[in-house]
Amino acid sequence: MALIVQKYGGTSVGSPERIKNVAQRVAHHHRQGHRVVVVLSAMSGETNRLLALAREISANPSPRELDVIAATGEQVTIGLVAIALHEMGFKARSYTGGQVRILTDSAHTKARILDIDEGNMRRDLDDGAIVIVAGFQGVDAEGNITTLGRGGSDTSAVALAAALSADECQIYTDVDGVYTTDPRIVPEARRLDTITVEEMLEMASLGSKVLQIRAVEFAGKYKVKLRVLSSFDAPDSNAPGTLITFEEDENMEQAIISGIAFSRDEAKISVMGVLDKPGVAHAILGPIAAANVDVDMIVQNIGASGQTDFSFTVHRNEYQRALAVLAAERTKGFSAREIIGDDKICKVSVVGIGMRSHVGLASKMFKALADEGINIKMISTSEIKISVVIDEKYLELAVRVLHQAFELDKDDVAV
Amino acid sequence: MALIVQKYGGTSVGSPERIKNVAQRVAHHHRQGHRVVVVLSAMSGETNRLLALAREISANPSPRELDVIAATGEQVTIGLVAIALHEMGFKARSYTGGQVRILTDSAHTKARILDIDEGNMRRDLDDGAIVIVAGFQGVDAEGNITTLGRGGSDTSAVALAAALSADECQIYTDVDGVYTTDPRIVPEARRLDTITVEEMLEMASLGSKVLQIRAVEFAGKYKVKLRVLSSFDAPDSNAPGTLITFEEDENMEQAIISGIAFSRDEAKISVMGVLDKPGVAHAILGPIAAANVDVDMIVQNIGASGQTDFSFTVHRNEYQRALAVLAAERTKGFSAREIIGDDKICKVSVVGIGMRSHVGLASKMFKALADEGINIKMISTSEIKISVVIDEKYLELAVRVLHQAFELDKDDVAV
Repeated sequence: MALIVQKYGGTSVGSPERIKNVAQRVAHHHRQGHRVVVVLSAMSGETNRLLALAREISANPSPRELDVIAATGEQVTIGLVAIALHEMGFKARSYTGGQVRILTDSAHTKARILDIDEGNMRRDLDDGAIVIVAGFQGVDAEGNITTLGRGGSDTSAVALAAALSADECQIYTDVDGVYTTDPRIVPEARRLDTITVEEMLEMASLGSKVLQIRAVEFAGKYKVKLRVLSSFDAPDSNAPGTLITFEEDENMEQAIISGIAFSRDEAKISVMGVLDKPGVAHAILGPIAAANVDVDMIVQNIGASGQTDFSFTVHRNEYQRALAVLAAERTKGFSAREIIGDDKICKVSVVGIGMRSHVGLASKMFKALADEGINIKMISTSEIKISVVIDEKYLELAVRVLHQAFELDKDDVAV
Repeated sequence: MALIVQKYGGTSVGSPERIKNVAQRVAHHHRQGHRVVVVLSAMSGETNRLLALAREISANPSPRELDVIAATGEQVTIGLVAIALHEMGFKARSYTGGQVRILTDSAHTKARILDIDEGNMRRDLDDGAIVIVAGFQGVDAEGNITTLGRGGSDTSAVALAAALSADECQIYTDVDGVYTTDPRIVPEARRLDTITVEEMLEMASLGSKVLQIRAVEFAGKYKVKLRVLSSFDAPDSNAPGTLITFEEDENMEQAIISGIAFSRDEAKISVMGVLDKPGVAHAILGPIAAANVDVDMIVQNIGASGQTDFSFTVHRNEYQRALAVLAAERTKGFSAREIIGDDKICKVSVVGIGMRSHVGLASKMFKALADEGINIKMISTSEIKISVVIDEKYLELAVRVLHQAFELDKDDVAV
C-alpha cells in the first residue's frame, strides 16, 4: 500500500465531465489499496478570467488582492472533485491551502512554500478518506492568502509529497510522458521510461513544457519520486508514464542521449568589435538585465587586435526592446563597431546525462547538421547538453536529423 | 466620526463598472471621516453558476463541499472592491469569513453565526484602512468553510455591526428604501423615513423583499441601527433611505399605518364539515407540515351542529401537493364533508405599529374594499397587521384603494 500524491492540471478538470473522469482515476488507485492525496489546478481558463476581471478595475492591482481572487479558482475545483468522489461512494475531503496549512512567505503572486502541516491530511488518510488539496496556493504567517505563481500546482504537489514522504508524486497532463522529442515533428519520437532530473530541466527549459521547472528542482532537492502521466488515458489504464530519477547510480539502463529539445521563440543579437577588456560583458548585459529582458545563450568569441564579438539570445518578443536598450547604451557604456541582430533563428539541443562520459557527441551532432547543409550560427554547451542556433526554417529538419543520428527511435541507444 | 457597516448585494457588484461605483460610494463615506466596514455578496448570477456546476456532478452534493465552492463567489468580490479602492488611492484590505474569523456552527449551507473576532478589523480601521468582508460565509470551530444560506450577507453585515458596536448598518439594494407599498402598483407610494422592526418583518414576509428576515431579527436582537438605501443613487448622494427602528419610545413621529403589503403567490384550501373536536387542526395540518409544505394563514370558523370549516393558505407552487396530502389523509386522519381549494387568490395586508392603540382600522379596511365590490374570502389579524384573502384579479385595485384610504401618499397620516 503506497501513499501517492496525484496532481491534475486545468485541462484535466476543465469540465464536469472531465472532473468525473479525474474522480474515476483517483478511485482506481484508491481501490488498489493506495492512500491518495489529490492536488488540483483551477478549471482551464478560470484563472485568466479572474485576473482579467481584476485588470478591468485596475491596470496595477494589489498582489495581495489578486491572490485572494485567483485562489478561488482551485477552491471551486477541490469542492467539485470531492463531490464527484462522494457520488461514487468514496470518502473525500477538500482543503484549501490555508486549511491544510501550506505556510508560505508573503511574496504575493510568487510565494515560496516554507512549511506544510500534514496533521489534517494524515488524519483523513488514516480514516480511509481521499484528501483533495487546492494547488497553487498557501497562506502566510499572518493568515493572508498567497499563490505560488503560474504552474504552482506542480510545486504544491511535489511539496505535499515531500511533507508526507509519499512514495510517488504523479503529475497528470495532456501528454503521457516525456518524449525523445516532439512527436508532432518526429513521428518516431519515443516515450522515455525514465529521465534524470537534470535532463528533465534541460528539456523543460528548452520547450518541452511538461512540468514546471520549479517543481522539478523541488523534487530534486527533496528526492521526491516524480512521474509524468496522461490524464487522457482510460482511468484504469496502468500506463507507466515517465519516471524522473535523481540518482545516476540507481542502476538503471541509462541512455546516453535522452532527447532533442528545441525552442522557436529566440532572437540573436551580436555586438561586434567591442574592446576586449574586463567589464565589457557587464557593460553590455547589465542594461539588458536592468530592462528585465531575460538572456538565454551567451557567446563571446576570441577577438583579434584587442577587439571581440559578443553574441547572446533573447526571447523573440523582447528582441526590439533589447536592441533599443543597446542603442541607447552604445555611446555611454561601451563602444562597438556594429550591433546586428536576427530574429529568424531557433535553438536545437541534444540533451543527455551520458554526455558526461562520452566524447565525440558534439562532432556527431555538427556532422549530422552539416550533411543537410544546415549552417550553425552559435554553439553553447553544458555538461549534459549541446545547443546550436540555426535558421528557423531548418528547425524541423534539424530535429528529425538529430533524432535519427542519435537513434532515439530505438530502445537501445548506440553512439 | 461614525463607524458604519455597509452591505452591497449581488446586483450592486454585478460588473466591474458597478464595483467601481460601490468603491466611490464607500470612498464618499470614508472621506466624510467615517470608519467604514464593507460587506459584499457575490456578483449577481455567480452563486447560481457555482451551485449549478456542483449539481452537474451530483444531484445531492455534500453540504460541506457546496460551501467550499459557493464561498468563492464573495471571495472574488472582496478582492475586486479592495482593488477598486486602492486604484482610488485608499487603504483597503479584504477578509474572507475565515480570515475575520466569523465563527459559525457546523450546519453547512445554513450555518448560524456564533462569534466574531473583531481584532483584525479594529487594527485596520485604526490604521485608517477600509475593511472589506465577504458576506454569507464563516468558518466553524474545526476550520471548515460554512455559508449562512441565501441572503446571508445581510445577516453577516448586521452581525459585524453588532460585534463592532457600529453606529449604523447600511443595506444597499436596488430600491432606495422601504415604501408604503409597491410603487409599480401605486405611483403615489411614498418612501418611509422610518419603520419599526416589527412592521419591517411583516412587510418583508408579505413580499416587500428588501431585507432578509433573519437579518432584521438579528438587528432587533442586538439593537443594530439598520438603514435601507439604494446603491443606484449617485455615490455622493446623501439620500436618507429608510431607517429601521427598534424602540417605540424613540420619540419619532410614528405613523399609525406604515404600508400596504401583498403577496400574489398564494392558494387557499378549505376543509369543510370536519368534527369540531380537539385535535382536528393537528390531524389536518400535521400531514401538511410533514410533507414540508409551509402554511401561511390559518382560519377556523365557528361551526354549527358539532361541525366546523377549516381554511388555510399555502404557496401556490405547493397547492397541488397539499391537496394530494389531504386526499390521502382524509379517510385515515380526519373525516370531512368536502375539501375545496382556490389558487386564484392573493393576500393584501395593512401593516402598522399604530394598530396596537387605534381601533376601527379593520372596519375602515373592510369598508374601503366593499366600496369597490371586492369580496373578502379570509381574514387574519395580528397585533400590527390585518390580512385579507381576495380574488387575485382585484390585487392592484385593492392595494390602490387601501393606500388611498389610509392616506399613505401624505406625510402626516390621519386615520
